[in-house]
Amino acid sequence: MRPVCLVIGAGAGIGGNVGRRFAREGLHAVLCRRTDQEGLDRLVGAIEDGGGSASGHLLNAIDGGTLESRVEAVEVEVGPIEVAVYNLGAQIGNRTLGDTSLKAFEMGWRLATFGLFRLAKSVCPRMAERGHGTLLVTSATAAMRGNPGQHSHAAAMGGRRLLCQTLNAEYGPKGVHVAHIVVDGAVDAPDTLGKMLGPDRYRELRETRGDGLLRPDKIADTFWHVAQQHRSAWTHELDLRPYTDSPWWNG
Amino acid sequence: MRPVCLVIGAGAGIGGNVGRRFAREGLHAVLCRRTDQEGLDRLVGAIEDGGGSASGHLLNAIDGGTLESRVEAVEVEVGPIEVAVYNLGAQIGNRTLGDTSLKAFEMGWRLATFGLFRLAKSVCPRMAERGHGTLLVTSATAAMRGNPGQHSHAAAMGGRRLLCQTLNAEYGPKGVHVAHIVVDGAVDAPDTLGKMLGPDRYRELRETRGDGLLRPDKIADTFWHVAQQHRSAWTHELDLRPYTDSPWWNG
Amino acid sequence: MRPVCLVIGAGAGIGGNVGRRFAREGLHAVLCRRTDQEGLDRLVGAIEDGGGSASGHLLNAIDGGTLESRVEAVEVEVGPIEVAVYNLGAQIGNRTLGDTSLKAFEMGWRLATFGLFRLAKSVCPRMAERGHGTLLVTSATAAMRGNPGQHSHAAAMGGRRLLCQTLNAEYGPKGVHVAHIVVDGAVDAPDTLGKMLGPDRYRELRETRGDGLLRPDKIADTFWHVAQQHRSAWTHELDLRPYTDSPWWNG
Amino acid sequence: MRPVCLVIGAGAGIGGNVGRRFAREGLHAVLCRRTDQEGLDRLVGAIEDGGGSASGHLLNAIDGGTLESRVEAVEVEVGPIEVAVYNLGAQIGNRTLGDTSLKAFEMGWRLATFGLFRLAKSVCPRMAERGHGTLLVTSATAAMRGNPGQHSHAAAMGGRRLLCQTLNAEYGPKGVHVAHIVVDGAVDAPDTLGKMLGPDRYRELRETRGDGLLRPDKIADTFWHVAQQHRSAWTHELDLRPYTDSPWWNG
Repeated sequence: MRPVCLVIGAGAGIGGNVGRRFAREGLHAVLCRRTDQEGLDRLVGAIEDGGGSASGHLLNAIDGGTLESRVEAVEVEVGPIEVAVYNLGAQIGNRTLGDTSLKAFEMGWRLATFGLFRLAKSVCPRMAERGHGTLLVTSATAAMRGNPGQHSHAAAMGGRRLLCQTLNAEYGPKGVHVAHIVVDGAVDAPDTLGKMLGPDRYRELRETRGDGLLRPDKIADTFWHVAQQHRSAWTHELDLRPYTDSPWWNG
Repeated sequence: MRPVCLVIGAGAGIGGNVGRRFAREGLHAVLCRRTDQEGLDRLVGAIEDGGGSASGHLLNAIDGGTLESRVEAVEVEVGPIEVAVYNLGAQIGNRTLGDTSLKAFEMGWRLATFGLFRLAKSVCPRMAERGHGTLLVTSATAAMRGNPGQHSHAAAMGGRRLLCQTLNAEYGPKGVHVAHIVVDGAVDAPDTLGKMLGPDRYRELRETRGDGLLRPDKIADTFWHVAQQHRSAWTHELDLRPYTDSPWWNG
Repeated sequence: MRPVCLVIGAGAGIGGNVGRRFAREGLHAVLCRRTDQEGLDRLVGAIEDGGGSASGHLLNAIDGGTLESRVEAVEVEVGPIEVAVYNLGAQIGNRTLGDTSLKAFEMGWRLATFGLFRLAKSVCPRMAERGHGTLLVTSATAAMRGNPGQHSHAAAMGGRRLLCQTLNAEYGPKGVHVAHIVVDGAVDAPDTLGKMLGPDRYRELRETRGDGLLRPDKIADTFWHVAQQHRSAWTHELDLRPYTDSPWWNG
Repeated sequence: MRPVCLVIGAGAGIGGNVGRRFAREGLHAVLCRRTDQEGLDRLVGAIEDGGGSASGHLLNAIDGGTLESRVEAVEVEVGPIEVAVYNLGAQIGNRTLGDTSLKAFEMGWRLATFGLFRLAKSVCPRMAERGHGTLLVTSATAAMRGNPGQHSHAAAMGGRRLLCQTLNAEYGPKGVHVAHIVVDGAVDAPDTLGKMLGPDRYRELRETRGDGLLRPDKIADTFWHVAQQHRSAWTHELDLRPYTDSPWWNG
């Protein structure tokens, strides 16, 4: 059985590109996303056209048991999960405290924090038993500081960051590499940025900004590098941003 | 009507001492805790014996609507909440990932993160309308980094810290002072440390450590100072630890 | 002999106000600054008019031996230094790398980092021998992150911040309270902001901003609080900014 | 003319391995170190034996003009510096404040902070003019927090970290990639760890720890990855440590 790269949150941006990159290196990519069977099929097809191996599943990470049973099924039916990528965000745009409902706040936590905890509970012990494995967590600026209007997002991502540190503290010495990758800028992704802006403004922004948008295939190169690091020299946290952008600490 | 200091989490440690300190300065202390009516009555009695004004309520912060209706009742029946203190922790001791249940993880978030969000939604707009008010959040080392065994606690407190930053970003300019106070050491509190250790070991530790345990009445002095800071020079985050202790960053 | 508060960098802003505040509490203030004997005399006079005790010295902190001999003289002739305040900045405005000379970069370090090291070498062992004492270090946003144009300032203040942590690690357990106070905003100080802007723009800014400028007498209240903290609950680092300002992490 | 990787601080550890790695990828490695012509020749020879191109120079980075004239000579005689690696540390072991002389403190700054500033002043404008280039700075735990006994080292490295941020803020948008690489653990390097321990204890430690020591050739893989990152997704800061080690924030 082929080692697996399981991607939770595999759209046409970071998740899909990471899956494709790892498939190119010989892993079987299991791509999971909440909706859009057609888009999912396209991703799987593109990987297979490139000579890689992949499969796809629609899955609502918020529903109890979904992540857990997917991990179980993959391990039994496909192969050992060598790399798990948690790529679900919880950005809902800027909202005042008054406009952030209890439900939205809880949803942010369920997606960004609790889902990762559930995935970790499922995959980390399996990896530890094998003595190796990698858990890559896509993160955002909101994990580093709470900006105006980010009540839900910052609370969820700030919790996620420290959860990654605790996971690393327990599982690092067992051979499981946990990495928290702070994507500190706008990603050139049709499924998120593209849908937010609409086709015309998206095209225009891509033309204007060029390499000033994070290219998801280039992000995937760094995900791959981190997953390949020798265990004598692992990275737990790193940032990624376009050369044109100010880092979050510079405002 | 007298200005109120509302304390959520008022045991015999930080919460109770903060309530007493603010009552000494002329505010009416509304003390809330989950259990122990007798202990609560003792606290209220002690404040009144010292010439202060106080009242107490048993309240389960996790239950929907409890914090919200308490805020409402206080504002209507007692007086404007000038200072709100969120003093609920979610420390459950060190547990491996395997031993941290989904329920425990969620409970940590409900207590440490979601409860603060709910309190803030209730009091911050009221304070903003008046143009002044203070929200003091007791925090812990776990808000700064994820240590081994702290999956639930670190995720909850890390989220809480960034939530405080987002609250500050929105409400600071409206005159509401939000402060995140990192208590980085063991507090000499009978209700928490005392119960954890049992009477004999607690007495022994107090005798051995002396000022090497954080004295809650001294912590309360700093809570009071922060609440009194002039709005031209506010503190958002500070740490507190005994002179004998290594800060968290020194390990 | 009366306990002394030694202020290195005592102009009409933070330094002078801190000296005045501590003199009001009964310490003898020894005020040191590089130039302006007249301004210094005015500060001393104002303190004495208020019933306090003070003396002043012109002193170039960069010159070898100046800080050391002042400490020596104060301890012998005036009294034990209970509180030392290091209030020298090294802000030279934004300059490109090309416009930052080797000399300017070194000067920044001599003022902001090396001077503090020299002062600490002189006063900390004396305080440790007595079992108590406080070293308060005024700091700035530049100690937290390196902004554009701050090559000299950020390098000097970043070094200063970590030096404070190392001093605290060694001297805290010996009873010496080291605090790093991050002043994260514009201070309403005639000697710095006032001179930078000129009298007209300074007056205008004060009128427009009001409490949106840090009032140095209010900053001094927090310096005093920190110096008075009980050793069971010391603060090592805190920030100060006007309620209107975005914290540095929010950009 | 072949693009150059200039390494300041090229012993048998990180510096030499980084030079060798970049030479393997086709750059000419210019290796600089303070002493040991023989060791330097061996490094150059090893690179050439592997089919790479390299040259070596003894150079005392503390002496005025040395870094500057080496950069000048390389650019004129060898080729454009595409990558500059600043790999000089200033670790002198733990010393009390009393045992840290003014001279040792200054030396730490000259090596760890001022030397990088001087190198940056020489190479960054050249890289900016060409629109591309990379400055990789090897860093240490001491850049993140001031531990006991690290007065000189922490002050120097803390300053260095923020200098990297300021350099990045100015030069990133000009196409110069500045990265601060925190090596948070013991490196398996004969010239530093080996000399510190002596041959017997060094051999023993290597056998006991295995991958629990950072392997410099594996560190070099990450240096290479960072230097190769596409400019739409650059990393400014990352950490590296053995899988067995606790990160600095976990103590």
